[in-house]
Amino acid sequence: MTTDIEIARAAKKQPIQEIGAKLGISADNLVPFGHDKAKVSQDFIASLGDRPNGKLVLVTAINPTPAGEGKTTTTVGLGDGLNRIGKKAAVCIREASLGPNFGMKGGAAGGGYAQIVPMEDMNLHFTGDFHAITAAHNLLSAMIDNHIYWGNELEIDERRVSWRRVLDMNDRALRDVVTSLGGVSNGFPRQTGFDITVASEVMAILCLSTDLKDLERRLGDMIVAYRRDRSPIYARDIKADGAMTVLLKDAMQPNLVQTLENNPAFVHGGPFANIAHGCNSVVATTTALKLADYVVTEAGFGADLGAEKFMNIKCRKAGLAPDCVVLVATVRAMKMNGGVAKADLGAENVDAVKAGCPNLGRHIANLKQFGVPVVVAINHFVKDTDAEIEAVQDYVKKQGSEAIVSKHWADGSAGSEALAKRVAEIAESGKSQFAPLYHDEMPLFDKIKTIATRIYHADEVLADKKIRDQLRQWEEAGFGNLPICMAKTQYSFSTDPNLRGAPTGHSVPIREVRLSAGAGFVVVICGEIMTMPGLPSRPAAENIRLNDAGEIEGLF
Amino acid sequence: MTTDIEIARAAKKQPIQEIGAKLGISADNLVPFGHDKAKVSQDFIASLGDRPNGKLVLVTAINPTPAGEGKTTTTVGLGDGLNRIGKKAAVCIREASLGPNFGMKGGAAGGGYAQIVPMEDMNLHFTGDFHAITAAHNLLSAMIDNHIYWGNELEIDERRVSWRRVLDMNDRALRDVVTSLGGVSNGFPRQTGFDITVASEVMAILCLSTDLKDLERRLGDMIVAYRRDRSPIYARDIKADGAMTVLLKDAMQPNLVQTLENNPAFVHGGPFANIAHGCNSVVATTTALKLADYVVTEAGFGADLGAEKFMNIKCRKAGLAPDCVVLVATVRAMKMNGGVAKADLGAENVDAVKAGCPNLGRHIANLKQFGVPVVVAINHFVKDTDAEIEAVQDYVKKQGSEAIVSKHWADGSAGSEALAKRVAEIAESGKSQFAPLYHDEMPLFDKIKTIATRIYHADEVLADKKIRDQLRQWEEAGFGNLPICMAKTQYSFSTDPNLRGAPTGHSVPIREVRLSAGAGFVVVICGEIMTMPGLPSRPAAENIRLNDAGEIEGLF
Repeated sequence: MTTDIEIARAAKKQPIQEIGAKLGISADNLVPFGHDKAKVSQDFIASLGDRPNGKLVLVTAINPTPAGEGKTTTTVGLGDGLNRIGKKAAVCIREASLGPNFGMKGGAAGGGYAQIVPMEDMNLHFTGDFHAITAAHNLLSAMIDNHIYWGNELEIDERRVSWRRVLDMNDRALRDVVTSLGGVSNGFPRQTGFDITVASEVMAILCLSTDLKDLERRLGDMIVAYRRDRSPIYARDIKADGAMTVLLKDAMQPNLVQTLENNPAFVHGGPFANIAHGCNSVVATTTALKLADYVVTEAGFGADLGAEKFMNIKCRKAGLAPDCVVLVATVRAMKMNGGVAKADLGAENVDAVKAGCPNLGRHIANLKQFGVPVVVAINHFVKDTDAEIEAVQDYVKKQGSEAIVSKHWADGSAGSEALAKRVAEIAESGKSQFAPLYHDEMPLFDKIKTIATRIYHADEVLADKKIRDQLRQWEEAGFGNLPICMAKTQYSFSTDPNLRGAPTGHSVPIREVRLSAGAGFVVVICGEIMTMPGLPSRPAAENIRLNDAGEIEGLF
Repeated sequence: MTTDIEIARAAKKQPIQEIGAKLGISADNLVPFGHDKAKVSQDFIASLGDRPNGKLVLVTAINPTPAGEGKTTTTVGLGDGLNRIGKKAAVCIREASLGPNFGMKGGAAGGGYAQIVPMEDMNLHFTGDFHAITAAHNLLSAMIDNHIYWGNELEIDERRVSWRRVLDMNDRALRDVVTSLGGVSNGFPRQTGFDITVASEVMAILCLSTDLKDLERRLGDMIVAYRRDRSPIYARDIKADGAMTVLLKDAMQPNLVQTLENNPAFVHGGPFANIAHGCNSVVATTTALKLADYVVTEAGFGADLGAEKFMNIKCRKAGLAPDCVVLVATVRAMKMNGGVAKADLGAENVDAVKAGCPNLGRHIANLKQFGVPVVVAINHFVKDTDAEIEAVQDYVKKQGSEAIVSKHWADGSAGSEALAKRVAEIAESGKSQFAPLYHDEMPLFDKIKTIATRIYHADEVLADKKIRDQLRQWEEAGFGNLPICMAKTQYSFSTDPNLRGAPTGHSVPIREVRLSAGAGFVVVICGEIMTMPGLPSRPAAENIRLNDAGEIEGLF
């Protein structure tokens, strides 16, 4: 069997200028990075002004299982399929984080014959966006300690510096550190730590900002520390917002690459899907919407986290409205939700498929609450049987929706043509009547309850007095209008990763709340959230090398 | 008066493909980064094979003074001057470090009408080389702690991990830290720290490696820790060398940009000039030599450090031989060496010029010891008087050399034509009979003494038994053939920064020696060497921002 990387390496890429031309971007307005990557220039984006938007299609998925759902693969396959049926379509996905590639093998952008290339660059430094975010984040960190060092005019309480440092590396040794040791000239020792770059609020901000002015304003709004009287210190007080914006000015320009079928793909931004909203950048999505008739994008994790945040955070903030939602499911994942172990997925098991379908059903019902039409894409695996597929399709039909088999992994756009046609029909029908799930004015705790009851189908939200007081305090300080960014396990509707299917009667306990004042949301943490991964006992890095042909081995 | 940045912004840049064409590099063999920067592809460089080399000209300087000597400005001006007189010439300089720009204003690449552009990009992320070095360095750091965490099969003594972490940021809080706090799952707490990226041995290696295979071998050779029995652990033992090479594969390709006069300039690599050798990359220099008739390059600090290391480390290792050395001096710097304060530099003072000339004279004599012809370039400042210039020229003539006034700062290549003509004559005369100052086989301590007595003109080298024992131990371990990399103040021939002119009778006390087994040199530290700078009380970052025209303010 041909592997993803072999397929990617065999791709007949077109020069990036030709890809840009398909969207009406002249070579002058592309900032090339090599011959197969480019940024779309800020000036060009600004010139697009009031052009009408194309149709927006969100690809989301059921709760992830070890069987793999293929959300990105479907996003790419659908984009190619839409182009195949004559629609000018572009794909918008997130950039990959560098660090995790050295832990576990990984890193494809799609799979099979539905991939984005150049895959290797995209999993290494790409166009340097994440490095720029790391630099901007750590400049602020250095300026905070420097401010304290030189007299602490702002009266920062050294025990209450909430701004940490970041690296795009899996390095558990940096999770919890004491800095400024070694004597007077190194500052005041204090305990702090490092997160991985994708967990930085700067990443979330880059992905939610509409332009450089908005970026600078949001960076200035970030809370970095508190005084002894608990009043907040902003990045603006540290005077870091301007220099951070300068460091990020190129990173704000979306990256253009291509699918295996030479269709345009924007790959830009990559915020965590737990403590952040997990979507590609607003700039990339809105730019693509001005240039293409169809924009296919995706959101992190399953629909309970990813689609919910896409709707309630990204669409709300950016004034976007999806015209159709594609919910990705697989026969294999249905079986796992129905209780089958990964090792037994090869055998036909229609009963297990049926038993697992309620997970899919609840996602369909949830998505309809946002007023958007939903179509299920069954991402086809070679061992799926007709009876199993039919079981899924019958179930979905009973939910008032429809499930279409898509074979883009094996056949590229030829395999996704049926899905593309149906998506186009739905999007053009104008049926979508998108609205977020809650209003800005709703109290913060009520917003949390709304998500927990209407999306997770929980009975109650558990939060001690300290957390409720904190939420009230933020409301008094003027942050009550912010949306909620839930951080919980992606493996279940509940906060227990082992509860598959469509659980009810559960509680959502809140462990911690954090204010991302620059990104513009309140993070609600349920359970343990890891913001700095570690490496496994045999890291992939040990086997990554250049072979004699100059090809990268071990990364994929 | 027009500022450097105004001149740089007004530059009429040619597309980088046209600059490449001047050196016979086709557009296919350039990896573009925007329209005005490119990397020269690895494949193209490999294809150059046995082409004959052009002439190599080193630009170095007297000991730096607060008056400023303009070494890079002269390098650029000379390159343009050579092109003006019909020679195909390329300039090779180092890349700028990102972090320090946020401390003090800075960052030009040359000055006046002798600059390299795009200046702003070059002082920000440029083509991402330093970010790649940061990532490669920190991957190794993470893998070391990870190895210890998962059982420490190599029996690393946690107290003797010499490999630190790096960031391209001025952040004194990171100089001395304790990592792996927070409990069992974060590893074993230990004290370590961060250096600035340019101080990384990876940077030195990138700049000394001839190709990717050499790079990988050198990375593997780096000593990262010791066992309890003091035996060394190499990066190769950690199995990080392959993945680090993959992270650095693009960074190894030299960057091509242009001067204000649209002549080719390679800007690649930037190792510290104290704990490393302070020259641009061997790959850039050797590539330029295959493509141009003349290559003008520079070395860090004054000639006692920069030129000495250029000759004894870079030329020795890369098999290079300079055909001519240009020693940059200014009337102002001579005055300061003659005892004039910076505030009083505006007034004519021929006696002070004369009093300061011995610093220049000693550098001339030192350089001649390497068998290379020396010409002094008087980098002209508008307030220099004829009498002052004449005083310098007379003095230099008495030293058996010659001093040429060069007005490239004010007039570009028209101002450096005379200097260029003379340099070309000397280089083509074949007079240079370059040889390093000492042989590989000389004992390490004798190499140090050779540099101290013949270059610094010191009476003695002071080193306690521990240091002499360490040197002997390295000789027994097979490292005795390595050259020496001196780390001392750049402001004086001695180790006392206040001793200007041409001091004698001084001692060189060695505080510490370090083995850079991958880079391939022994670092000898005399005095305090700062490997992680801090920010000043009012960092430049506070005033750096994008203005309404989208231009960067406050960086220059």
